[in-house]
Amino acid sequence: MDAALALAARGLGRTWPNPTVGCIIVAEGRMVGRARTADGGRPHAEPQALAQAGDHARGATAYVTLEPCAHHGQTPPCAEALIAAGVARVVVAQQDPDPRVDGGGLAALRQAGIAVTTGVCVDQAQRLQAGFLTRQRLGRPLVTLKLATTLDGRIATANGESQWITGPTARAHVHGQRAQHDAVLVGAGTARTDDPRLTVRGLGPRPQPVRLVLSRRLDVPTDSALTRSTDTAPVWMLHGPDAPEDKRRVLTEAGARLLVVRTRQGGQLDLEDALRLLGDMGLTRVYCEGGGTLAAALLSADLVDRLDCYTAGAAIGAEGRPALGAMGLAHLSEAPRLRLSDSRSLGGDVLHRWTRPETSA
Amino acid sequence: MDAALALAARGLGRTWPNPTVGCIIVAEGRMVGRARTADGGRPHAEPQALAQAGDHARGATAYVTLEPCAHHGQTPPCAEALIAAGVARVVVAQQDPDPRVDGGGLAALRQAGIAVTTGVCVDQAQRLQAGFLTRQRLGRPLVTLKLATTLDGRIATANGESQWITGPTARAHVHGQRAQHDAVLVGAGTARTDDPRLTVRGLGPRPQPVRLVLSRRLDVPTDSALTRSTDTAPVWMLHGPDAPEDKRRVLTEAGARLLVVRTRQGGQLDLEDALRLLGDMGLTRVYCEGGGTLAAALLSADLVDRLDCYTAGAAIGAEGRPALGAMGLAHLSEAPRLRLSDSRSLGGDVLHRWTRPETSA
Repeated sequence: MDAALALAARGLGRTWPNPTVGCIIVAEGRMVGRARTADGGRPHAEPQALAQAGDHARGATAYVTLEPCAHHGQTPPCAEALIAAGVARVVVAQQDPDPRVDGGGLAALRQAGIAVTTGVCVDQAQRLQAGFLTRQRLGRPLVTLKLATTLDGRIATANGESQWITGPTARAHVHGQRAQHDAVLVGAGTARTDDPRLTVRGLGPRPQPVRLVLSRRLDVPTDSALTRSTDTAPVWMLHGPDAPEDKRRVLTEAGARLLVVRTRQGGQLDLEDALRLLGDMGLTRVYCEGGGTLAAALLSADLVDRLDCYTAGAAIGAEGRPALGAMGLAHLSEAPRLRLSDSRSLGGDVLHRWTRPETSA
Repeated sequence: MDAALALAARGLGRTWPNPTVGCIIVAEGRMVGRARTADGGRPHAEPQALAQAGDHARGATAYVTLEPCAHHGQTPPCAEALIAAGVARVVVAQQDPDPRVDGGGLAALRQAGIAVTTGVCVDQAQRLQAGFLTRQRLGRPLVTLKLATTLDGRIATANGESQWITGPTARAHVHGQRAQHDAVLVGAGTARTDDPRLTVRGLGPRPQPVRLVLSRRLDVPTDSALTRSTDTAPVWMLHGPDAPEDKRRVLTEAGARLLVVRTRQGGQLDLEDALRLLGDMGLTRVYCEGGGTLAAALLSADLVDRLDCYTAGAAIGAEGRPALGAMGLAHLSEAPRLRLSDSRSLGGDVLHRWTRPETSA
């Protein structure tokens, strides 16, 4: 199952709207088939692994990280494929909470006389499938917030200089993290100031994450590194109902997809609505890279499932730009609290990761 | 030597103005004497260990973490004591850079026909003796700066609420760190706002560090937790030449020792002068606990040898009080840079430690 999970992990950021699943088929102590969900989400892992195994699948054991599907969707159900191939035993890490599956896959297998074991490595499987599970459970993608700061929580000098606070190892790690998410999100301020590309670089040719920009009035440049690279990866802009018509037209012509989000009392975009919309669009894992206003708003709204802090051994002082914008707390007891899940050195920097107490991302 | 170093480490914060030294005497594979420099710096480790060993010292091996002294100070030289006891071999971690010793101890031992080995565990010894070495080399104590912040580098909410950001494990660790320093330092703002005691608590009865307050005009309360506890531990207040006479008198009467520090152009206290004065007073290790103005000034002046950051999984946002005050940087390249020396989880918080590239604290 460890091998199946490792195989599935390679599909992170590549298989949305479907979860990345790993399947390994073992016959007489020999691995006769191995596959993960293909890029784009189809075909699923099981039929690919069964095709590799061919006749060896008869009487074999299949290790699958997620319960095989039982419903007729755009692909025939995987449970049926396993039955048809004549496997003797199926070992599953985690049951699928998808209401269309939810135990149906396991029941079909058992009914066909296949020995079924579940719950193997279920913790690792839940971490791996956290994006898929969050979308199932909450209707929105898993949100990872990244902060790369000095020791004193600054992301740039007073005049905006921010290249580079963290070192090359941390920056390469960030590209790896972008790659493991379906989409990369920034606020309008970051889009204006940094003119970022938000692509995965330095990891060879690979599918790119969707680039997301949140800007109520589409107050972003119409000619930018983002709009100039819509051939490389999609650009989706989330804006309010009151965004100027001409801006919408120009950005659409530049290749961006525009998505309308509700606003809240006070006028700012409703982040829950924005994330629900992204969930509806199929995204399961979103990586937010700031800026401080968006980061603070996500934290305040309790929408951050995982927080990755990269801390460099530098100090900028109080004039520097803060990693988080205003949060309007009256008391310390109101401060969002996260649980430490990992801390380690990364080049000359520190990476510390925190999770929402409710999430197991 | 590991055992001698561990023994010496227990004397950190207790032996100033002398270094803490460990001495272990081994005869025929058996430990016959072990001691560290006594609290207050005298007697030294060697005569205590020799007294324990008695006649067993003849022909034995002495492991000492620092070169035995050769000069007649307030105690007779330890090199002479080792010779008189008839030890056959002396193993030393580090040579003493004190100009009054500087190889003289080793030379005397060798001249007496004793086999001498040096440089054993020298890196660990240098870390242990970093305070003593800093005072020798730079004429000032080693400075450890502590910051305990939220994820976004805040030490309190906008209205000053700061209890508690980090958890009980981190707070207990801070008391352990206070205990390993000769003195604890805060700025006037912290003395006013927090009314701290700055004592070591929860570690049983033990010598307390000197409490230091830096305040140019002695703008601190005359009746405070500090002035009410001068029986427990000394309070030294460092102020400028222009501090009001009446304030000086009242604070002196309250039991504080006042120390005059030069001011720089612009009026602020000259931190180098302050630390040099503390070095002259015998301090080898100073633990600074803020506030933000003093912390930023120490970093700007390149006077921080070690930075201990405790980071909690909470976010306060941009209105919160920053861990570091203004530093007036024009460019990111001017930002003080420190080198990561350790990072680990501590209860639910992270401790990351940084050192000046030149220091091996």
